[in-house]
Amino acid sequence: MSRILGIDPGLRITGWGIIDRDGFHTRHVAHGTIVSETSEEISLRLSRIFRELSDVIEKYSPHEAGIEDVFVNRNPFSSLKLGMARGVAVCCAGFFGLKIAEYSANKIKKSVVGSGHAEKNQVSMMVQKLLNCDSVKQDAADALAVAICHAHHNSFYAAAGI
Amino acid sequence: MSRILGIDPGLRITGWGIIDRDGFHTRHVAHGTIVSETSEEISLRLSRIFRELSDVIEKYSPHEAGIEDVFVNRNPFSSLKLGMARGVAVCCAGFFGLKIAEYSANKIKKSVVGSGHAEKNQVSMMVQKLLNCDSVKQDAADALAVAICHAHHNSFYAAAGI
Repeated sequence: MSRILGIDPGLRITGWGIIDRDGFHTRHVAHGTIVSETSEEISLRLSRIFRELSDVIEKYSPHEAGIEDVFVNRNPFSSLKLGMARGVAVCCAGFFGLKIAEYSANKIKKSVVGSGHAEKNQVSMMVQKLLNCDSVKQDAADALAVAICHAHHNSFYAAAGI
Repeated sequence: MSRILGIDPGLRITGWGIIDRDGFHTRHVAHGTIVSETSEEISLRLSRIFRELSDVIEKYSPHEAGIEDVFVNRNPFSSLKLGMARGVAVCCAGFFGLKIAEYSANKIKKSVVGSGHAEKNQVSMMVQKLLNCDSVKQDAADALAVAICHAHHNSFYAAAGI
């Protein structure tokens, strides 16, 4: 059995999700969001992501972690802002000795919905169906989707003996 | 008396510098660099920045912090990479309750050399002259320059009663 943390980082909302993988089976453990106000100082916003994600890691002790691959916005300012939140999330995983795998948005969608071109709400619906849970907010669902993708990816390689 | 931390974040090299400000006088306290290898996992590289910067803050207990303003690279990938290291540095300051002021590269150069269009090595030379120290590596000198800029800026406003 392996416990996986999926992260969907963002300066305003960071989603997180924890699932257990046992062979080819996955089970929902927990999920949530870390929200910060745009009116707050950026150092406080970023340190809240670090603090709350640390709490999640300490509480659930995941063995592995996954994050969506670099999505590069055409606007360099947006890339920088996204990069800051992403950096804190990746740093936090590293702080607890967690390796973090990166998956492209297409791979995540394909892993959950079966198509790399699925809509956001399709991903969210399938995550809830696959993990037998409901009322999951978009950002948390995206994080759970990353965790599912990581579980599938690793199970595949494990089954193939790679 | 106020103790100021200046940070020059980068994924490969993060410079830091500590100075004391007493009225209009500044005094060098310490400086250094946090270096990571490109061969290492990014989560380890980022968590090293967090860990070592935390050590610096815990050791020297600065009251204020400064960082160079957002330099946006035309290449969104570079912006994202820079953003990640920057996010970790800003997060670390916030983690210790430090407010972090941002200064444009031009303002920093003007504050140290007297011209916003100074060359990198001019900044480095002036930092060493102003703080009466030598053999300061470029990234640490840049961090000390931010601290000097912050000291001047705040002294000016303090003197003006703003």
